[in-house]
Amino acid sequence: MTRGRFITLEGGEGVGKSTNLQFIQDLLAQKQIDVLLTREPGGTELAEKIRHLLLEKHREAITPQAELLLVFAARAQHVQQVILPALTQGKWVLSDRFTDATYAYQGGGRNMDNRLIGWLEETVQGELRPDLTLLLDAPVEIGLLRAQQRGKPDRFESEQLDFFERVRQAYLARARQNPQRYAIIDAAMPLAEVQTQISRAIDALVS
Amino acid sequence: MTRGRFITLEGGEGVGKSTNLQFIQDLLAQKQIDVLLTREPGGTELAEKIRHLLLEKHREAITPQAELLLVFAARAQHVQQVILPALTQGKWVLSDRFTDATYAYQGGGRNMDNRLIGWLEETVQGELRPDLTLLLDAPVEIGLLRAQQRGKPDRFESEQLDFFERVRQAYLARARQNPQRYAIIDAAMPLAEVQTQISRAIDALVS
Repeated sequence: MTRGRFITLEGGEGVGKSTNLQFIQDLLAQKQIDVLLTREPGGTELAEKIRHLLLEKHREAITPQAELLLVFAARAQHVQQVILPALTQGKWVLSDRFTDATYAYQGGGRNMDNRLIGWLEETVQGELRPDLTLLLDAPVEIGLLRAQQRGKPDRFESEQLDFFERVRQAYLARARQNPQRYAIIDAAMPLAEVQTQISRAIDALVS
Repeated sequence: MTRGRFITLEGGEGVGKSTNLQFIQDLLAQKQIDVLLTREPGGTELAEKIRHLLLEKHREAITPQAELLLVFAARAQHVQQVILPALTQGKWVLSDRFTDATYAYQGGGRNMDNRLIGWLEETVQGELRPDLTLLLDAPVEIGLLRAQQRGKPDRFESEQLDFFERVRQAYLARARQNPQRYAIIDAAMPLAEVQTQISRAIDALVS
């Protein structure tokens, strides 16, 4: 059986991930592609509990190392229990964030060493990398304005502007380093235009 | 200010850790030593939540990698927020289990690569190693019989006999590799004899 394709959707706060996730799912359904929708951190019962630990606010400060190791603990579980079995069965997998988010948030945002992230990536994922990564990119101010309208901010959403600027720049750097699998989508454009760009990237993968 | 000493108490199930932890604490108190009692996994609010994820039973199987990364996530938090600050302030730290338990349970028990554990140990702990490790050692059957009398077994206590045999052998191998800091205590002896052995090891550290 042909191995499924692995698509990840990435981007900072308020860039429209949820809306476009649904759009991509519908697009693939129209093409009769059986797709498993998942997210990170999360995607299994245990990994969702780890997600909760990562997003909730604690009385103690979480050290950047503990945060990074929690992210990869959840990912180890997600990769082994969900992503690899689905791909092996020929299903496509669409994940709302994956390891590029770790390079952006923990690498860019928290200044963790990219070599440490790369080493954990190899340990946990082996050869597994996305076939296509759609990066929804928009100026930080636009995204935060949208995100603020969603109610109580979580531990990450409560960070300062320069944190999100570092996250954005780290995402763009990842895209430049991996042009073969990255499609940068200008998420500041009107939704119809954003979705035209997404459709084009998906079509290129399907054909 | 003189840095405090770091003592760890190790051993499999039912070897008498709790009883002897109290004994060591009293012993140090008699010597006017200010000691912080802590445990792994755990020791901070977040690390205790991670402990809970590790010990409770889940509907999904936890992969050995996810388990190992959770252990080190908790440890990163514990080392940075509790152990290092206490030692720097001149306090002694007595921990119910530490990284030797990872070599024993995840390395020996789960067959995880010791090089991976060693790499995480260096990343999370830097130079930090225990000054004294008391290993309470007893034949697996004796320990399990005692542990079974304590009520509902957790995820680790529900493992099979050969798992605990691997844990014991991995502990003994660690002790042979680190004779300068390890004291192997024969925990199958009567309690008075066990505590004489412990006192001797503590006295050697204090003087």
